Amino acid sequence: MKALLLVAHGSRRKQSNDEVIHLAEELKNSCNGQYLIVRPAFLELADTMIPDGIAACVSDGATSITVLPYFLNSGRHVVEDIPQIISACKTQHPSTTINLASHLGAADLMLDLIIAHATSAKST
Amino acid sequence: MKALLLVAHGSRRKQSNDEVIHLAEELKNSCNGQYLIVRPAFLELADTMIPDGIAACVSDGATSITVLPYFLNSGRHVVEDIPQIISACKTQHPSTTINLASHLGAADLMLDLIIAHATSAKST
Repeated sequence: MKALLLVAHGSRRKQSNDEVIHLAEELKNSCNGQYLIVRPAFLELADTMIPDGIAACVSDGATSITVLPYFLNSGRHVVEDIPQIISACKTQHPSTTINLASHLGAADLMLDLIIAHATSAKST
Repeated sequence: MKALLLVAHGSRRKQSNDEVIHLAEELKNSCNGQYLIVRPAFLELADTMIPDGIAACVSDGATSITVLPYFLNSGRHVVEDIPQIISACKTQHPSTTINLASHLGAADLMLDLIIAHATSAKST
């Protein structure tokens, strides 16, 4: 069973974290069953933390987990912190396949998305 | 002449700012001439600041500028700070149309992008 763990930075502002939690729910409803489990997790400042998110996916029955960093820039969190945490999670869950995707800012279609979003902007 | 101003938060880490500058260049090359001017700007911590970015677009000959906040979450910067700055810029450049797009995280195609990016993730 495939799981998607959407990893955001986490904010002191509850509304920002709630956006990520809501986004994970929307992803689950929009992925045409590609991921039967979609969960949010946070690097810091908010629950659920990444290792707990991984453990929850495993507990849900996930055999394969894709971890997607919901970050636009490849800063230290993306380059160092998240890979280190995921590496430790792999050790903890040796019978589960855990793939760390590149951060969202590196998505192939990001340029197209930005242009489409800009051109659809309404006059303000 | 249409311009696109890509507005990122700005980082103390030069590499993160350089990514945004590079992204603006890529956007200019990828937009099939929809925007003859594409510039990066930053809310804080890095040059070019937003008002200077707007002024540079006007100086380049822009008659219409779309400002696109390169943010995933609708935090205070997106909801308050950037709109206030853009409002002041409109007063400064009354003969230029300045449209503030919603932040990138609100893009219609964001869910599709995330799912496509997750499913294309290579095993690590």
